[in-house]
Amino acid sequence: MAVYTDVPEDALEKFIALYDIGGVLSFKGIAEGVENSNFLLHTEGGYFILTLYEKRVKKEDLPFFIGLMDHLAMRDINCPRPVRMKSGETLGELEGRPAAIVTFLEGMGIARPNAHHCREVGEALARLHLAGQDYKGTRVNALSVEGWRPLFDAAKDRADSVTPGLRDATAASLQALEAEWPKDLPQGVIHADLFTDNVFFLKDKLSGVIDFYFACTDFLAYDLAICLNAWCFELDGSFNITKGQAMIAGYRAIRDLEPREVEALPVLCRGASLRFMLTRLVDWLNVPPGALVRPKDPLEYYRKLRFFEACRNARDYGYSQ
Amino acid sequence: MAVYTDVPEDALEKFIALYDIGGVLSFKGIAEGVENSNFLLHTEGGYFILTLYEKRVKKEDLPFFIGLMDHLAMRDINCPRPVRMKSGETLGELEGRPAAIVTFLEGMGIARPNAHHCREVGEALARLHLAGQDYKGTRVNALSVEGWRPLFDAAKDRADSVTPGLRDATAASLQALEAEWPKDLPQGVIHADLFTDNVFFLKDKLSGVIDFYFACTDFLAYDLAICLNAWCFELDGSFNITKGQAMIAGYRAIRDLEPREVEALPVLCRGASLRFMLTRLVDWLNVPPGALVRPKDPLEYYRKLRFFEACRNARDYGYSQ
Repeated sequence: MAVYTDVPEDALEKFIALYDIGGVLSFKGIAEGVENSNFLLHTEGGYFILTLYEKRVKKEDLPFFIGLMDHLAMRDINCPRPVRMKSGETLGELEGRPAAIVTFLEGMGIARPNAHHCREVGEALARLHLAGQDYKGTRVNALSVEGWRPLFDAAKDRADSVTPGLRDATAASLQALEAEWPKDLPQGVIHADLFTDNVFFLKDKLSGVIDFYFACTDFLAYDLAICLNAWCFELDGSFNITKGQAMIAGYRAIRDLEPREVEALPVLCRGASLRFMLTRLVDWLNVPPGALVRPKDPLEYYRKLRFFEACRNARDYGYSQ
Repeated sequence: MAVYTDVPEDALEKFIALYDIGGVLSFKGIAEGVENSNFLLHTEGGYFILTLYEKRVKKEDLPFFIGLMDHLAMRDINCPRPVRMKSGETLGELEGRPAAIVTFLEGMGIARPNAHHCREVGEALARLHLAGQDYKGTRVNALSVEGWRPLFDAAKDRADSVTPGLRDATAASLQALEAEWPKDLPQGVIHADLFTDNVFFLKDKLSGVIDFYFACTDFLAYDLAICLNAWCFELDGSFNITKGQAMIAGYRAIRDLEPREVEALPVLCRGASLRFMLTRLVDWLNVPPGALVRPKDPLEYYRKLRFFEACRNARDYGYSQ
């Protein structure tokens, strides 16, 4: 939620001249994206987002992310489309950082979605999965099951300072997930971070999906499990089964789930809870003193994990034949 | 440079419905303005800036600021124009904070202005002063000469930790300014903070002036002294007399300076240096440990003060008959 790099006007003009989008009319840093510097850029050619990739995004991953947006946009997925330079390139350099210009998407995030929004998200996720099937790029999901134990090891000694018993409970959840994690589900490109701030709506119609910087190759149904975690719980921590049903039905209207995916959904949901709990926990325990930005609460996902651990099958959160 | 308040979409829709600007198309927090939360708002009616006024702006001052922008915009000054609600009001409330919508100005700030830009700023400043002459609102400048000693008192004990000798040198400068500060110069509304990030240019033509939240009633020539401080020094700390000449000539082409204003300009320039040095010094000494935002360097204005103290008259920085 910040701009980390200032872009002087002469450097900007020089960069923009590499594109065929006319002269700059306005340029403003926007509070969007936790990892990068984002600017709203208005030129004679229209409205765009200019992104400078900061340290937390690996430079070698950028062709995967930008190529993916290009691939999806060409298949009519409403996502930012990378703008090509006159040279044909989509990735340049500005102020010593990798930089790209993408098209601007109208719409706004919805903090408190209803079941209708959840259905739209389910549909959009399935469309994204289908459109990504012939994408040639691959990227290992560093935050899937193999990545969780290192995160746990980094946090376990101080986990109980967040809430008593967190260490032992998490160790047990992790061990069970490592044993039960599926090995043979349909794979492909997943968004892997489709939270409410990454989906735009215009008058209740889903208008766009942004922030592909966690996208990777993994089980498609795991992406649905992430969305069930991110969209279908109420503020009081309860799971809203109507939202879960709407999301799963929306997904299946576009891409039906295979029986083995349905069977795996409970363990995938637990995994998604644990993944966000662990990254939040590590961030929580490593806040620099006096930092202005309060990290997100890891216990939110600890409670979601508890819910999914109590479920017996996919029907408990919205799947029906 | 931040957004301090989140605005949920339902609260936004409700607020926007008070205006006649159509439905919301997009809404993004922007990294502009140190004191308030600013959002770029695109509606069916066009592009706007929505500002939520945070604690550092006094609520009772808002009618002065917003009335001033309205007054100036009606007199063809390129500044944000407050948009009226259907009720006729320009100031509302959103998420418990005073809030206003103003028109969006194209253009961008120029970090490294040349003499041409300085001339444009001089002209725009004089136009602003003339257009403000019949504005009925008044606001005491809390950061003029009477406000400096309290700032110095708050900082003096630790001033030498910033650079040795700063305390004594500042005490001497302050004492001289208190003795020499003029009492009878032409007054009116001044911007009082016309730094490079508050002036927009489009293809080298000044396209707008923003951020009126330090505006107040004070000597008009003091505003010019602030601009000479803010615009006419090089990065190496040297004063660029060509820029000074251009700015003063630009100002005088629209509103000529009276002889007593010319005579007072050296003391006003020293005062402007001291004012920004002192507020920066207080901020510098009161940074919370671990804060992400590094405060601006007070010594930049200490060096500018040294320059102006060495000048003998207005000719030394660009005034000519």
